Amino acid sequence: MSRIVYVNGRYVPYAEASVHIDDRGFQFADGVYEVCEVRDGRIIDEPRHFARLKRSLDELKMAAPMNEACLSVVLTEVLHRNRVRSGLVYLQVTRGVARREFFFPADDVPPTLVVTARSVDPLKGESVAAEGIRVVTVPENRWERVDIKTTGLLPNVLAKMQAKAAGAREAWFVDRDGFITEGGSSNAWIISEEDVLITRPAESGILRGVTRTTLIDLARKEGLKVEERAFTVTEAKVAKEAFITSATTIVTPVIELDSAAIGGGKPGPLVKRLRSGFHAIAAWRSI
Amino acid sequence: MSRIVYVNGRYVPYAEASVHIDDRGFQFADGVYEVCEVRDGRIIDEPRHFARLKRSLDELKMAAPMNEACLSVVLTEVLHRNRVRSGLVYLQVTRGVARREFFFPADDVPPTLVVTARSVDPLKGESVAAEGIRVVTVPENRWERVDIKTTGLLPNVLAKMQAKAAGAREAWFVDRDGFITEGGSSNAWIISEEDVLITRPAESGILRGVTRTTLIDLARKEGLKVEERAFTVTEAKVAKEAFITSATTIVTPVIELDSAAIGGGKPGPLVKRLRSGFHAIAAWRSI
Repeated sequence: MSRIVYVNGRYVPYAEASVHIDDRGFQFADGVYEVCEVRDGRIIDEPRHFARLKRSLDELKMAAPMNEACLSVVLTEVLHRNRVRSGLVYLQVTRGVARREFFFPADDVPPTLVVTARSVDPLKGESVAAEGIRVVTVPENRWERVDIKTTGLLPNVLAKMQAKAAGAREAWFVDRDGFITEGGSSNAWIISEEDVLITRPAESGILRGVTRTTLIDLARKEGLKVEERAFTVTEAKVAKEAFITSATTIVTPVIELDSAAIGGGKPGPLVKRLRSGFHAIAAWRSI
Repeated sequence: MSRIVYVNGRYVPYAEASVHIDDRGFQFADGVYEVCEVRDGRIIDEPRHFARLKRSLDELKMAAPMNEACLSVVLTEVLHRNRVRSGLVYLQVTRGVARREFFFPADDVPPTLVVTARSVDPLKGESVAAEGIRVVTVPENRWERVDIKTTGLLPNVLAKMQAKAAGAREAWFVDRDGFITEGGSSNAWIISEEDVLITRPAESGILRGVTRTTLIDLARKEGLKVEERAFTVTEAKVAKEAFITSATTIVTPVIELDSAAIGGGKPGPLVKRLRSGFHAIAAWRSI
């Protein structure tokens, strides 16, 4: 099946899907994006993704390419045209095409919108989660506004390549005070001896993950205590359990941090419970 | 005259010049670039631009799209096809097209190369330089590896928009210790009472500007003392003269920093001399 992609008002075959070389997304990383999980043909947490997209656009004074109702139609259409039941849908908005110049172009330059989707076998994620993943730490070296979901992702790419070189799947950034900020493409969590879920506050220094937010809902519903506070590498290494959250990994156990085994080097029971409970609440929220 | 652009082996009309939506330059800012001045039909400081491009590519473990001799032919061809005698040539290299995934794609994915050129009336730059420019300071908030010339330029875009909103043309980033790092798209310089040229060392925290390097050559040739050291906002405000360097602005006087007039609010004699002497040495270097 040839894939179909949405680009600026048209549904086009993947091979022909292109943007102009003077797109500000290409030349300045002047763009934002969202990745949503698709499960049983439905987009998980779409309202929260749209709310975050709106925030990203507002922070950058970037125009929305269309209203949320229309955007939702486009996402769904891309899913249908690609027959995606399980997988992900990706959307990217940029400040549009203009002669290269740092200053914003005129207000009448329309933003660029690209939407793609692809199927992912859910069993793959399950098997990764059943094993758990290794994580390495890297110094936090990104710009200050990582709370905005921009396409300026090269530092994340490099951090994740460092992880890969060390046989790990994710990198956790560590700030100058020794506190973990977040992963290259996920939020970072630990669980204390008393089963308290600990994750860094999302006011600044990290992206407010949609899966993170929904997991907080779930935890509270389950009567679990959530502490939004920064934690150190040392604390993480001796945590009872640890995990990451993201739209593509949902809740995935971390079993090793910089060669230190966490939770005996095996996925722990609470992370497993959170993972298996996640979609009940996410589906409920998506109704 | 319709513009011609080089994209991945083909010279195409500007309107058709595109890259795939899965280009890593578009999705991850996984790309680097160079802008060279063109004067009398010749590329100024091409060897230094190529050397810096090589360094950027090496730092990111990115393959060069072709060797330097071939690249030089392409740049020249784009200039000729667009009949550019005075202006600039822009080149961008990305890690190529691959299904979206943070980790680098396979080694056999060819890098993307885009080259554009455009004419700029040299009198425009002269008139800006004759007046001098206003600069505002903004907090340094970029990632640590600004020594690599990547397309992750959104922080620079936002800083320069802040400048524009304040009626200025450039923004100077200021680190947490109060020292100026560099401009949004230029290097920052001041001149002391004793006619010493002062600019921040390029070992880290700033990009090693090609125009900056060539200006150091010129200054030494003219018997001027150059001090590579960080300087503060306070020091800059009371400097005898101040200026910026870049391939597109050459040497342009700064007459105001955050509303404080520098050098009586008029371009000073030494900056004028450096600007007018610049092309003699740059042309000599380009032979």
